[in-house]
Parts: sequence; structure tokens; C-alpha cells
Amino acid sequence: VLVASTDSVGTKMMVAARMGRWDTVGQDLVNHCVNDILVQGARPIFFLDYVATTHIDPEQIAALVGGVAAACRAVGCALLGGETAELPGVYQPGEVDLVGAIVGVVERARVLDGARIRPGDAVLGLPSTGLHTNGFSLARRVLADLDWAAPLPELGTSPDEALLAVHRSYLKPVQRLWAAGVDVRGLAHITGGGFVDNLPRILPAGVGAVIRRGTWPEPPIFGLIQRVGQVADDEMFHVFNMGLGMLVVVPPEQVSLAQATLPGEVYVVGGIVAGQAGVTISR
Amino acid sequence: VLVASTDSVGTKMMVAARMGRWDTVGQDLVNHCVNDILVQGARPIFFLDYVATTHIDPEQIAALVGGVAAACRAVGCALLGGETAELPGVYQPGEVDLVGAIVGVVERARVLDGARIRPGDAVLGLPSTGLHTNGFSLARRVLADLDWAAPLPELGTSPDEALLAVHRSYLKPVQRLWAAGVDVRGLAHITGGGFVDNLPRILPAGVGAVIRRGTWPEPPIFGLIQRVGQVADDEMFHVFNMGLGMLVVVPPEQVSLAQATLPGEVYVVGGIVAGQAGVTISR
Repeated sequence: VLVASTDSVGTKMMVAARMGRWDTVGQDLVNHCVNDILVQGARPIFFLDYVATTHIDPEQIAALVGGVAAACRAVGCALLGGETAELPGVYQPGEVDLVGAIVGVVERARVLDGARIRPGDAVLGLPSTGLHTNGFSLARRVLADLDWAAPLPELGTSPDEALLAVHRSYLKPVQRLWAAGVDVRGLAHITGGGFVDNLPRILPAGVGAVIRRGTWPEPPIFGLIQRVGQVADDEMFHVFNMGLGMLVVVPPEQVSLAQATLPGEVYVVGGIVAGQAGVTISR
Repeated sequence: VLVASTDSVGTKMMVAARMGRWDTVGQDLVNHCVNDILVQGARPIFFLDYVATTHIDPEQIAALVGGVAAACRAVGCALLGGETAELPGVYQPGEVDLVGAIVGVVERARVLDGARIRPGDAVLGLPSTGLHTNGFSLARRVLADLDWAAPLPELGTSPDEALLAVHRSYLKPVQRLWAAGVDVRGLAHITGGGFVDNLPRILPAGVGAVIRRGTWPEPPIFGLIQRVGQVADDEMFHVFNMGLGMLVVVPPEQVSLAQATLPGEVYVVGGIVAGQAGVTISR
């Protein structure tokens, strides 16, 4: 079965534009798309990219496409090609949009849709590197008055570095779980909408999930955004991944196998419960 | 063999924006992509679309995606889905970009690359509906001061209608040629760069093509642009399709079969010649 998805880097491009740094967003794009089809059980086979801007700067395009190519190589996906468009008048001066389309493949019997998820299953979390590619409109508004280039002790780096941290691909860790024989019953890529919107998509009728905050480390960029912007917890969990880029639902007896397969990379962050729909964040 | 391509509607979107008419550009996008893979011998299997703007207007998005869906249905291609992005700050107010990715399939033995093209072959032309999706930056600049909504006798319609004429899909006529047993040796989709840039891509080493102007009707929108903008012939042929959206190279003895298969739709516009590279437009 072929599986396909398309997406863009969104307003993270404006952070790249503000910093004049174009080598990372191509990786964000590819990894985002890889994760989007991974949740259906698919591995990527090829990728196409589209870059549009007001005025083509060859060095900038080379950096962007170089990031796309590097990320494709890293996940074993062919970069089939793409298109570069110069659209004066459509884009704001200096701004760029980067769009990707990915095609992957999965055996029909192995298509993942969460149908086998049962009450009592464990929800595991795989750590994110930061915002990945979601929540940048809020983050940029909240942090607008900060000096993004100056290191902040609470971040351990500068805001710009923390914001541009590359969206992780979860292909390899998930493939290691499969190879170890872990019965992965569902995968949720945590993008726009956070746990609250993304996890329910794979839950069968009549079951919900409880996520226990405090069971995984939250990258300090989220604390900074929440404090500076006085953002409520609910909104934080609706907009950001809060430190977990991929949730993995497994039977409870396989938690230790998953942890042994990915040492130090797997957090047990919650469980599947009967009789309530949706996701509850407990504190 | 899977074949894929990605493209956007380019600055034709600005014509749609100026007219507030969003139902045709989705068809342009799909048909452009269909033709791009058709030249490799492929038929489309699925399509993904991406729409980005500053502020999502549900009616506008419905019209855009409705055009995409209608064109996909017309060519028997599944619209697998897509993404809608609201990117304030990246786009100019009111402007929209519409990007598509297509995946098609062709049997390995039937992949078309022009390798069998020989001196003496005929170049057939299939008519375009107008600019299709190329040359809009020049057209918009040249025609900026005209009233686009007022009918012009020389066009038989208003400039806006002529400019927004839908990019034709050549899938069905080309499939009819194949079904009739016409030995199609090469197909060139005439997009940005005109005959001069697009036809040589499929010509083997050591052969060129001569195109005889006057052997096909040129839609009046090209004459209007050339006259108002005082554009040289060479530039016209470099920027626009000049009335032929697809060139088909066939052996000379099959010209009459092609004409009988697509009555009134096929022009014999030139031929393949030995000993000179590139395309010569003779007058």
C-alpha cells in the first residue's frame, strides 16, 4: 500500500528568515513528513520539495535543498526532485515557503490505525528536540521582544538555537521497536493540536488516554514561552508537543522490552483507559 | 515504475486574486502536473494539494480544493488529501499559493524519453487554451493598465477570462493516440521556456527540430500581449506556449493516423532534422 502526505514548515520559516539560517528547515520538512506517514506504519520511499520566494538567491536555495537532501539520505528516502518558484507579489519580501510531499509504502497487513488499542495499554513517549514545526506563531509573538541571539541560562542556549532545533525523525527508533518484536498498537505524531488533538485520532471508540505530566522532561523553551507569555497550561498542551514528539501505544507487558530496546529514550507517560473519550492530562 | 512531480500555479494565482475567482486554478494545478508526468508515459494515480495564505477563508479554500477535486476526477486520479496552512507574515495580504504533488505509474518498458526520435519524424502540436500556467509575470506587467473585465473584440472575451482559461490536460488525447496504435516517440509539455527550452529535453544527441510558425492558430491573447508590450518574437516563444501545449513526435507515416484519431485537434507543426541541436522557429 502506498501512503502519501504533504506539509510545509509553516511559520518556522520566519525564524529561519530572521536568522538568515537556511540549512535546518529542510530537515524539519522531511522529518515532519516521515513521521506523518510512519504513524500509518509506512517507511518513506521518495520525497519531492517545492520552494517559493520573491527572489531566488542561489545560496539560500542550495542551503534549503541541502537540508532536504541530507534528511532524505538519513532516512533512506530518494529525493526525486522538486520545483523552485520565484513569485514576486505573492510572498512578503525575504520570506520563503518550503513545501514537501512524501510517498511511503507499507504492507497491507501491517497498516497501523490504532484499532487494536485496548484499555490497560501503556502510552510511551519519545522525546522531541523542542517545538519541532508547530506553535511558531504563538512562540514568535510571545518572544518577540527578547534578543534571540543572546544565550539564556535557563535554555542553556540562545532562543534562536532552541527555536530552530531540528524536528526529529522517529523512523529509526520505531523501526528498532518493530525489529525487537514490540507490538506497536498505535503511533501518534504530536504536531499542531498537541496530545489533545493528535492522540485521539488513533483511539478506538470507547477508550481514552490519561497522560501524567512530570513523567518526562519538558525542554526549557516551553517553560520560557509559558512564563514570558503567561500562557495557560491548557493552551500550552494544545499548541505544543511539550517535549514528546511521538507517542507509542504498547501492551503493558512490553514496556520493559521497549525500554531495553531504546535505552534512555522511552518514557512511560500514561495509559489507555476505558469509558472516556479523548485525552486527560493529569498533574 | 512510479513517476512523481511537484509544481505550483505560480503568479497565475495573482490573476485569480485580482478577480476573486478561485474555482479554476485548482484545475490548472492538477492538469499541469498530469501533463508533466504524461511526457514520461505515466498516467496519474494520486494527487496531494497544499494551500497557503495569510488568512484562511473557508469559501475560498472550498473553491480552490473543489477545482483540484474536479480535475482529479476528470483524469481518474485519487485526491489523497492535502494541507491548508495559514502563514501570516510569509504571504502578502490576500495572496495564496497552491502547490500540488502528483504520483503516476508507467510500465518500465513503456517509459518515454525520446530516445527513439529520428530525423524525418513529424512534430505534431496539440492546441493550448491560452497561457496555461506560464508567462504570467510578463503578461501581468504588460497588461497592467488595461481593464481586465471589459470584453475586447480582438480576444472575443475579456482579458481576465482569456488569462484564466484552464490549463488543458492532454491525458485523454494522448491515451487515444496510444490506443489507436500511434507510435508516440516523444512528448514535450510546453511550459516555462516555451518550445525552445522544453522540446530539446527529449531530443537525442545530434538531432534538432524545426517548428514552422503559421501551421497552427495562435490564440489572440498572445497577439495582444505582444502588441501592447512590444515584445520581440524570440521572447514570446521563450516565455509562452504560443498556442501549443503539448508537442508529440511520431514517425512521418503515422501523421494521418494521428490526425484521424483526434480530428481537428492535431496540427503538423514541424519536423525532426539531423545535424543541428535545439529548436529553430521558421517563419
